[in-house]
Amino acid sequence: MYNIKEWRHVFKIDPNKEISDEQLEKVCDSGTDAILVGGTDGVTLENTLDILARVRRFSVPCVLEISNLDSITPGFDFYFVPTVLNSSDPKWITGLHKEAVKEYGDFINWDEMFVEGYCMLNPDSKAFQETNSESVSDEDVLAYAMMVENMLKLPIFYMEYSGMYGDSNLVGQVSRKLQNTLLFYGGGIHQAEQAKEMAELADVVIVGNIVYDDLKAALHTVQAVKETKKK
Amino acid sequence: MYNIKEWRHVFKIDPNKEISDEQLEKVCDSGTDAILVGGTDGVTLENTLDILARVRRFSVPCVLEISNLDSITPGFDFYFVPTVLNSSDPKWITGLHKEAVKEYGDFINWDEMFVEGYCMLNPDSKAFQETNSESVSDEDVLAYAMMVENMLKLPIFYMEYSGMYGDSNLVGQVSRKLQNTLLFYGGGIHQAEQAKEMAELADVVIVGNIVYDDLKAALHTVQAVKETKKK
Repeated sequence: MYNIKEWRHVFKIDPNKEISDEQLEKVCDSGTDAILVGGTDGVTLENTLDILARVRRFSVPCVLEISNLDSITPGFDFYFVPTVLNSSDPKWITGLHKEAVKEYGDFINWDEMFVEGYCMLNPDSKAFQETNSESVSDEDVLAYAMMVENMLKLPIFYMEYSGMYGDSNLVGQVSRKLQNTLLFYGGGIHQAEQAKEMAELADVVIVGNIVYDDLKAALHTVQAVKETKKK
Repeated sequence: MYNIKEWRHVFKIDPNKEISDEQLEKVCDSGTDAILVGGTDGVTLENTLDILARVRRFSVPCVLEISNLDSITPGFDFYFVPTVLNSSDPKWITGLHKEAVKEYGDFINWDEMFVEGYCMLNPDSKAFQETNSESVSDEDVLAYAMMVENMLKLPIFYMEYSGMYGDSNLVGQVSRKLQNTLLFYGGGIHQAEQAKEMAELADVVIVGNIVYDDLKAALHTVQAVKETKKK
């Protein structure tokens, strides 16, 4: 599954959180389409390399979602670069990207790199606050989606509810605005039913925290998403 | 010349500056590839419509470079939307764009819209200050160029020296980083020789202020650019 356009389900693994080998094996062998390695804080080169080495034992595609310059390393299949559309700080929109290109530009295989247009949607989350994001209306989110699809032509629009289950009505509206850009949904999926609901609306459903809180429930989301058709 | 990839020379006309019908006719009939309507301050719907109506009498393509929401109007052949890469204010990077899409998104013909990745290069200029731009090193400019070409895949990278003749060495270095993105050069062209030098390095040379200061010299830049091959 090295074609991201075919992905439906992704597990997000935070290098800064503990996970046993046994648990990680279940995650990697779950049938998920990819492992997305990324987190909000405490992501270091060391813990990123640790997860990389441990995931690499399995055949699942392994993606680094870049959150800081220190933890960038070769060895992943893809590199996802977030640009936080509703951040009030240029650092999160284009700043880090420029620094990364300045440092690594000549070594980057651009075919492995995908820019994600992020919309931070949970004002109470660490990710929202860390990126100095601003609260947005539904109309703002729809405008960002159209901007990403038509102006910036980014491959991915990411609705990030970080720990909070999202507004499926809004996810559906955004979905109908996007033709070429993939819609990634992430946040607050605790049961298969929720994963299924979002899989009807988004191209890719990201399951994160529940991996650490209730692995069995997390594993159930894979099949739930896989057997659901996007409407 | 409705294919921007074939453009070499463009005149930039500021709706907030006076130009007589006779002068405007010479500009429009000069053989330039397009008229880019845009300015830093004092651009209103009224003066934009005035220029539009006056340029429309000629067959030259007429482009609106959007600088504020109030002056957006149908009737132009293309709409160029700057995103100021080295701005410290998100308003100039993605903010205005989101507002424009929010207001006009459903009416926009996206095929007529091109995003320009701007790099503001003259710290003493009004454009630089108005957009809260930050000074950049040569390495920063090269990184922005690579970002625009490879990450954001924008159609245009615009080196804006606003009134100051640029660093041809840097323009040449940037040019070599770009394959798909067009390089626009603007700033401080007062004579045909300068236009020629930049035409060897950039895809498109923009001639602005000199139209108002020395029309004859401005008109000479058209042929100078047209008979120059990009290296």
